Amino acid sequence: MSWSPSMHRMLLFAFICLLFHHTQCYSWKTAFLKQQVDHFSFANQDTYAQRYLVNSTYWKRGGGPIFFYTGNEGDIEWFAQNTGFMWDIAEEFGAMLIFAEHRYYGQSLPYGNKSYSDAKYLGYLTSEQALADFAELLAYVKSTNSGAAESPVIAFGGSYGGMLAAWMRIKYPHIITGAIAASAPILQFTGLTPCDAFNRVVTADFSSASAECAETIRKSWKALSKILVNDDGKEWIRTHWNLCVPLKGTEDVANLKDWLTNVWTNLAMVNYPYPANFLAPLPAYPVKAVCEHLTNSTLDDHSLLDEIFKGLSVYANFTGQTQCLDVSQQADQSLGDMGWDFQACTEMVMPMCGDGINDMFEAQPWNLEKYAEKCLKKWKVNPRPLMAPLIYGGRNISSSSNIVFSNGLLDPWSTGGVTKSLSDSLIAIIIPEGAHHLDLRAADPNDPPSVIKAREIEKQFISKWISSTKRDRKEIPKSFIVG
Amino acid sequence: MSWSPSMHRMLLFAFICLLFHHTQCYSWKTAFLKQQVDHFSFANQDTYAQRYLVNSTYWKRGGGPIFFYTGNEGDIEWFAQNTGFMWDIAEEFGAMLIFAEHRYYGQSLPYGNKSYSDAKYLGYLTSEQALADFAELLAYVKSTNSGAAESPVIAFGGSYGGMLAAWMRIKYPHIITGAIAASAPILQFTGLTPCDAFNRVVTADFSSASAECAETIRKSWKALSKILVNDDGKEWIRTHWNLCVPLKGTEDVANLKDWLTNVWTNLAMVNYPYPANFLAPLPAYPVKAVCEHLTNSTLDDHSLLDEIFKGLSVYANFTGQTQCLDVSQQADQSLGDMGWDFQACTEMVMPMCGDGINDMFEAQPWNLEKYAEKCLKKWKVNPRPLMAPLIYGGRNISSSSNIVFSNGLLDPWSTGGVTKSLSDSLIAIIIPEGAHHLDLRAADPNDPPSVIKAREIEKQFISKWISSTKRDRKEIPKSFIVG
Repeated sequence: MSWSPSMHRMLLFAFICLLFHHTQCYSWKTAFLKQQVDHFSFANQDTYAQRYLVNSTYWKRGGGPIFFYTGNEGDIEWFAQNTGFMWDIAEEFGAMLIFAEHRYYGQSLPYGNKSYSDAKYLGYLTSEQALADFAELLAYVKSTNSGAAESPVIAFGGSYGGMLAAWMRIKYPHIITGAIAASAPILQFTGLTPCDAFNRVVTADFSSASAECAETIRKSWKALSKILVNDDGKEWIRTHWNLCVPLKGTEDVANLKDWLTNVWTNLAMVNYPYPANFLAPLPAYPVKAVCEHLTNSTLDDHSLLDEIFKGLSVYANFTGQTQCLDVSQQADQSLGDMGWDFQACTEMVMPMCGDGINDMFEAQPWNLEKYAEKCLKKWKVNPRPLMAPLIYGGRNISSSSNIVFSNGLLDPWSTGGVTKSLSDSLIAIIIPEGAHHLDLRAADPNDPPSVIKAREIEKQFISKWISSTKRDRKEIPKSFIVG
Repeated sequence: MSWSPSMHRMLLFAFICLLFHHTQCYSWKTAFLKQQVDHFSFANQDTYAQRYLVNSTYWKRGGGPIFFYTGNEGDIEWFAQNTGFMWDIAEEFGAMLIFAEHRYYGQSLPYGNKSYSDAKYLGYLTSEQALADFAELLAYVKSTNSGAAESPVIAFGGSYGGMLAAWMRIKYPHIITGAIAASAPILQFTGLTPCDAFNRVVTADFSSASAECAETIRKSWKALSKILVNDDGKEWIRTHWNLCVPLKGTEDVANLKDWLTNVWTNLAMVNYPYPANFLAPLPAYPVKAVCEHLTNSTLDDHSLLDEIFKGLSVYANFTGQTQCLDVSQQADQSLGDMGWDFQACTEMVMPMCGDGINDMFEAQPWNLEKYAEKCLKKWKVNPRPLMAPLIYGGRNISSSSNIVFSNGLLDPWSTGGVTKSLSDSLIAIIIPEGAHHLDLRAADPNDPPSVIKAREIEKQFISKWISSTKRDRKEIPKSFIVG
């Protein structure tokens, strides 16, 4: 696979104006950069075209910073639309905005349609390769934009993108001046965080809406098992839950439960204080909205599952446009579930478990062996669960600097986040009312004061980092000339 | 290619007692660790066995440091034998010694005999992969040696090994506490150092022995060209220089000149103050010894080349055992020339040039295009000259810490070294009488005071780094809990 040099030039000027719950218009140029498929070896010298989005409206040429979104597992336009914080503060900082698409997502497919067909094509989907793409892209942008060479670069990212932002600063401090790593679970790896922590926070979100709510969900699993044991029960669910596709074997039942687990988890993640369309179109405080339907855990199995359906319709059919309930896929198609599944089977192995007592889910132990078997079967890969901590440092990142780790306490991912400052430049911000990287979203009239404050602190650190690059060099320390 | 888990266990107890110019006995255990051929992708999930050497004679179990040699382009036993500094100070520090072989050298061949047969096998010979091998090896050693988990690790390396030592600290500060990077030309890359600096220092070494010496060498190139233009001249050289193989075409002539260039360069590098056997068995101050024969640059061409032959016999036949002069290979076979040639054609592109006026060599411009053509022809690879600076930071490494960069001013590689301290923990040591990583060699009665002093300073920094890991943690900085 090879690309002409003209791949470098801007291909398309896209102007996208989107209607959110209040109107926001973001515009960008779309460009592609030729990248090595494999940055770290020479056995495969193929190249591919990485997509990135640029907005220079407010950029102060000759020193204005570059705000660089380290794209994660999805279409980069979707992240550009959902990271309003960068747009909100661009003018104040005179910043150029760049949103870099993560390889194997959106339009940045190294082997086109074949990219996901085999591990020999897909195997280059790793965070290390993605970070090297970002480094190359920044080197290219700096060398081709007059006045950008000295621009400090601030990395931004949320969730896995936040991990990448932090890791960019950790691994490429000569390129990245500082990083805002929002809801970045860099500690959600083997041996670093108890595997049951995540599900406990999800549960806490529901039980703080109402104790009955969490209890109803906890009881629903057994009710489902009992009812779905025979064909009558499966037919009952199909009609009462309006399923698009009837359930057949035990695998379908397991899939339904997985889908439900994901719904409750996603609701906890996007428990935003205003209507939003992040993982799905949802009302304000969607957990509360769901829980308004889950008020009685003592009902019989059928009535309890009717309640559950009412609750999950908030997630699956808030707009009222859904014809039937499709439990074969998640609500939002912008997220590259296939790609993330592969990453979770290779280096992004994040152990999760629960006992069904301290959380509202079915008891599920963490079993690496079984997990690895599934991965081998599905993707023909052997997971390397210790790889990310080895490469990026796990809990031992105190040699690094200039990273803000923000976490919302409503967000289950906060359990794998850095929630205590590690030094005076590795800063933890806790947002008690925050869900999943709420701080990266655009300012909103319904923002709680805590997220407004968090963004203020983030801005202060960004200013500090930028000005530190401009400060005069310290006194040059002495060299030892011996003899 | 797959290995049984038993690869991990110690395979061999080697006891090697070597006669140097004074007797030194170093002993070690040899072991192998199963490593991923490709640490950063999953397209190739092959593994191989990396060799490493361990000595725990003086190790203080439960806290004693690990001194870790980051193996470079050669057989690791050779580096173990030639890095006496680590052996000399092991007892004082209660240190475990580990010498890790660099992939594709010595016995650490990922694809056995096929390793060098094609870029698809050889392509994983990169510094990034080698560093990841080292990281994995240290994780393995720490997890399998009771009392090693908390051991601080000090990386040591000379030349390319010094670059790797520095880069280990830069990229894996959570694993490496500090690094002694001796004669490490981490700045010998495109855009970082003038390409003519190296040859100027080689020349200065010879001209400071005697002005006539450098002048004789400078004149020798034209003399060679004139004489070797016809078969009579080629025959004259064969007999007068006692060549093993007669010269035929122009390629042979070019190879002879390349070989000569290497000889003068190597002599400058190993211009040690006592007899040593590093790149070749040599007398003390070998440049001076050579120059004693090169005393008259005004001789006619034939007589001048007779002089040259006498001079280079110091290098090629110091022991008097050589039957004939083999200009097809370098004197020391422990260095993996093939492997280094590949690395120089991929990421270790170190521009060299000269004008023949400010240096004693034939004028040679630096021409990346031609260089790349040769690499493509020879190895089927496209060089990536900007890769190493992009990955490791080039001159912008001030975010890192705890590295001593030592350089001898006699050493031409010092031109690509860090010769000014960059912070109070990125330290430059200049050894005016030092050749190529003299400080890493064993203490010797003929050591000049400067190298003794350099080693003292290095030991002080090692102590400081080790004790800093044991110091109580600083006051925990505050986290921001907003709202």
